[in-house]
Amino acid sequence: MKTFYGDLKLGILGGGQLGRMLIQQAINYNVTVKVLDPDREAPCRKLCDEFVVGSLGDYETVYKFGKKVDLLTIEIEKVNVDALEQLEREGVLVYPQPRIIRLIQDKGLQKQFFKENDIPTAPFKVISSVDELKQAEFNYPYIQKLRRDGYDGRGVYKVTDESSLTNAFTEPSLIEQMIDFEKEISVIVARNENGEVATFPLVEMEFNPEVNLVEFLISPSTFSQEIQEEADSIARKIAEDLKIIGLLAVEMFLTKDGRILVNELAPRPHNSGHQSIEGNVVSQFEQHLRAIFNQPMGDTACIGNAVMINVLGEPGYEGPAVYQGIEKILKCPGVYVHLYGKALTKPFRKMGHVTVVDQDREKAIEKARFVQGTLKVVS
Amino acid sequence: MKTFYGDLKLGILGGGQLGRMLIQQAINYNVTVKVLDPDREAPCRKLCDEFVVGSLGDYETVYKFGKKVDLLTIEIEKVNVDALEQLEREGVLVYPQPRIIRLIQDKGLQKQFFKENDIPTAPFKVISSVDELKQAEFNYPYIQKLRRDGYDGRGVYKVTDESSLTNAFTEPSLIEQMIDFEKEISVIVARNENGEVATFPLVEMEFNPEVNLVEFLISPSTFSQEIQEEADSIARKIAEDLKIIGLLAVEMFLTKDGRILVNELAPRPHNSGHQSIEGNVVSQFEQHLRAIFNQPMGDTACIGNAVMINVLGEPGYEGPAVYQGIEKILKCPGVYVHLYGKALTKPFRKMGHVTVVDQDREKAIEKARFVQGTLKVVS
Repeated sequence: MKTFYGDLKLGILGGGQLGRMLIQQAINYNVTVKVLDPDREAPCRKLCDEFVVGSLGDYETVYKFGKKVDLLTIEIEKVNVDALEQLEREGVLVYPQPRIIRLIQDKGLQKQFFKENDIPTAPFKVISSVDELKQAEFNYPYIQKLRRDGYDGRGVYKVTDESSLTNAFTEPSLIEQMIDFEKEISVIVARNENGEVATFPLVEMEFNPEVNLVEFLISPSTFSQEIQEEADSIARKIAEDLKIIGLLAVEMFLTKDGRILVNELAPRPHNSGHQSIEGNVVSQFEQHLRAIFNQPMGDTACIGNAVMINVLGEPGYEGPAVYQGIEKILKCPGVYVHLYGKALTKPFRKMGHVTVVDQDREKAIEKARFVQGTLKVVS
Repeated sequence: MKTFYGDLKLGILGGGQLGRMLIQQAINYNVTVKVLDPDREAPCRKLCDEFVVGSLGDYETVYKFGKKVDLLTIEIEKVNVDALEQLEREGVLVYPQPRIIRLIQDKGLQKQFFKENDIPTAPFKVISSVDELKQAEFNYPYIQKLRRDGYDGRGVYKVTDESSLTNAFTEPSLIEQMIDFEKEISVIVARNENGEVATFPLVEMEFNPEVNLVEFLISPSTFSQEIQEEADSIARKIAEDLKIIGLLAVEMFLTKDGRILVNELAPRPHNSGHQSIEGNVVSQFEQHLRAIFNQPMGDTACIGNAVMINVLGEPGYEGPAVYQGIEKILKCPGVYVHLYGKALTKPFRKMGHVTVVDQDREKAIEKARFVQGTLKVVS
């Protein structure tokens, strides 16, 4: 039998920062890693046993790549699932399972899944034409989301009144009641083939509304135990309903009236788990490896209060990246820098992240604010 | 100016596990890394921007390799120092400085340096022939050490009586009074170009006398504050006397009568600092990068009680490595596995290490004993 710390070959679809941090962890287990990505300058290019340049959406490319490995995983959902299903039929292990990637690729199916499984989520309606949109009985403002290929804030449109309908998406989409939320929260859950399930403690996120990206994340949450337990059990239920093998990020809203509504899922390591590298006993990357290799789930307890700041390209700069302020932030104890190895910056591109760990929550936040004001990516 | 998180190219002489863990950390700073090692199967081979196969002892090979980078460091002392000195004259940054590598390569010069700088060390005598050895006025038993190229227990000989002299080394060596020590201890110190010095907390080691390798290490030490402060100030003094740029491991004996004697130095990341990856706020690898790149020294505080176990090839097995018991040890919370990516095992070869971190010292030790009894490298 091939073992993950021996002769087993792992393939990763996608060679971005999530793949990069997964490889950093996989080094500890001698894992042979092959990566497929369309960008020959992708962050993983120099860190794997084989880097293949090719389209993640192309059947033949994904199929051929998959035939070279024993176990295939993803760091991005937008991949050719038909190829993954064929590979699965031919005996390649594909985790998360292709049926789950297919479900999550389509926000319409995802919402349908929530509804069918009694998972709390905002009221929604699947829309296939602008006409249907006009007939929707939702109060303004509401949110229109493309069913497919939305990512990092793209594919989301706010319908404020009838006049704004002229700019609405014409592709298949769904509309969703706008949620008056207190906070975006997330639980990362993992499940292995043995059925063992483990969750990371609840984290709270601060969004930058201008670009719809997480700017700031704090772990663990200080919400009431009741809320934490509810969020935790929702994440566990979804992992069990899906019977997922691997990591699943469950993004949720905590509404102003105290309800938890699931926003969306990501079946892979996720931005809302980066702080786990230094802030938890095991990181989300270690946990994903353990899950897909059917190893015991690791201890997810927090080591301290961790704040994660996404390092985004400064607006107004485009070109070869220059990092300012690193020396200053390295003077702060408990500050961990992660740059993603992207040669070019552009406004709001995710260029890295910084995690601050401190036993004192207020100090961690204070240091994080300092990092935010000090570290700049320009060109 | 080239920055370490930008366009600066780092060269590492040696591609073993120390280089591998250094690269794992350097990934966080986008560092472009080139590695030179004679073994085309060395642990770093797949993790760097360029892997060059060649002799570390050959002037031309080291010189040519060094001309390709901006900053050169080592993960093993046995390198061609003449080439490093020439590179230094030509403007390549070489950290640690070649004069320090030259000093430490020769245990005779190293001891001489201790003596000249009032650094406590065991009485010794430099020996250049077997005749001199016979005339040495040391009581049996004493230790003969080769001046050069001793490593991991090789190059050390115990002279028990006159008859054992026949098997003594004939190469240049030194003899040293045998120390009746309580414990081997180590402090890792780092110094950057600005002259900032930082030490890691004292650690205690348990040796396997059969193979003269560290088998077990515990951090932090529970020796008295007085002993900890003395060891700390010895390490600081040596770093300052040497004006080293980079990491320096200071291995010491604590004698049964409570004195500290310096045994030897290693100007690089060291086996006695592996537990810092998970057990301290910054790891020795992060600290070495910070030191050679003249960044602020990181916080070395312990996060918990950490025990590090070297994973050695099981006696009686030689060939492609097979790891037994990994799944069992991953069930223990706070157990971190690091395999070094060596294809072949042989008796007592360092194949990896495991660190156990626990807030409770006794529990950490208990888990470490379990790991030791459970994880086996066979073939």
